[in-house]
Amino acid sequence: MSTNPPVIPRTGIGIDVHAFAAEDQPQPLWLGGLFWEGERGLSGHSDGDPVAHAAADALFSACGVGDLGTHFGTDRPEYAGASGVTLLAEAARIVRAHGFEIGNIAVQFVANRPKFGPRREESQRVLSDAAGAPVSVTATTSDGLGFTGRGEGISAVATALVYPAG
Amino acid sequence: MSTNPPVIPRTGIGIDVHAFAAEDQPQPLWLGGLFWEGERGLSGHSDGDPVAHAAADALFSACGVGDLGTHFGTDRPEYAGASGVTLLAEAARIVRAHGFEIGNIAVQFVANRPKFGPRREESQRVLSDAAGAPVSVTATTSDGLGFTGRGEGISAVATALVYPAG
Amino acid sequence: MSTNPPVIPRTGIGIDVHAFAAEDQPQPLWLGGLFWEGERGLSGHSDGDPVAHAAADALFSACGVGDLGTHFGTDRPEYAGASGVTLLAEAARIVRAHGFEIGNIAVQFVANRPKFGPRREESQRVLSDAAGAPVSVTATTSDGLGFTGRGEGISAVATALVYPAG
Repeated sequence: MSTNPPVIPRTGIGIDVHAFAAEDQPQPLWLGGLFWEGERGLSGHSDGDPVAHAAADALFSACGVGDLGTHFGTDRPEYAGASGVTLLAEAARIVRAHGFEIGNIAVQFVANRPKFGPRREESQRVLSDAAGAPVSVTATTSDGLGFTGRGEGISAVATALVYPAG
Repeated sequence: MSTNPPVIPRTGIGIDVHAFAAEDQPQPLWLGGLFWEGERGLSGHSDGDPVAHAAADALFSACGVGDLGTHFGTDRPEYAGASGVTLLAEAARIVRAHGFEIGNIAVQFVANRPKFGPRREESQRVLSDAAGAPVSVTATTSDGLGFTGRGEGISAVATALVYPAG
Repeated sequence: MSTNPPVIPRTGIGIDVHAFAAEDQPQPLWLGGLFWEGERGLSGHSDGDPVAHAAADALFSACGVGDLGTHFGTDRPEYAGASGVTLLAEAARIVRAHGFEIGNIAVQFVANRPKFGPRREESQRVLSDAAGAPVSVTATTSDGLGFTGRGEGISAVATALVYPAG
């Protein structure tokens, strides 16, 4: 009789930072897979969603298969303007193709605004659907300190757990 | 014959930053669940302990049940002035009520001072008792860079592992 | 008949920041266990490799056995000038001596340069050999923001998973 071998997961980490777009080149704000009407947008090669990007980078990090730049860098013009949700779904597809299953992804972003709580469930649903695994999103401020405190940009940090598939 | 299903844990992440209190409004310093006599204190809705707060936020993040603001925000006046240890214990109670057990929590803070090594064991004991699970606390500096390097505040980042109970 | 008890891993986190060395005291750049010819170096008690240091600190954090300062601090002159690879290998030895096995380590660093992609595999091989476990390394920028964006230094953040040995 055999017992299942223990499943040893792997951890990964991802950080993503985007500066707010210049005032004379306004952009829509995409954050946590959602569009935020009336909020100042972030600059970026894609839609500049640091939550989705950090989540995707944490997946790549856990699996040791490169990073956002490897897979979606500026030398991949087909991803210019791609949504963070699209990139996260593609990252999930890539890590599964490398033989990993996704346990969960957890992301926290640091920003003075927007007020996230009322849309947390919606954001988590959109990102979890993209990843095909639970994605949690939380928010905090940096108490007025640093570039996030000065309102120059938004940062996000994510961890992911993956494990060898079947 | 059945074998135990594999236990798939979930990872979470939490960041917390507090600025030092203004010199004309001095506060006691609470850090890592401990009072630091003679050290400049941090501002905050509660006792401003970024280590305990990051630990609590990492628990919420791992379980996908909101964040510090959801559970202890400024709209919850009963938590005004609550200690970080109290908030961590309450966070642990909440995630267990959602069906999770806590594997461990690891926190690192970034600050020029206080010198943490001599009180690490004491801090870990206080926070582990509050969480009902092992909490490790480590310290580093940012080599003089950024808001922590300039002595404007203290940041902490935590990861937590939780798993489905029973 | 007995089944294996579930293997509950532990998570850890490590952050490391080094400022660039002053121009009149140039240093070689060591990053991710590699020497980077022609790149401006970082200051540090050791070789200033924030990727290797964050990895080592994440191991200590996961096991709750102190931190870089505890084991390799300035009161340990035998480590002055030690390479990050040496410190990571020593950290791995220490945590194994405490009864833990290493699952994996994931590190992301934040810097404007050097261009990391072409040497990622080499870096991961060197660090994985040192740790005796998979180490993934990823890179990002902070989009021109903060001390990394201004080119004042390099930061790295790592997570590690460990579990009780056999």
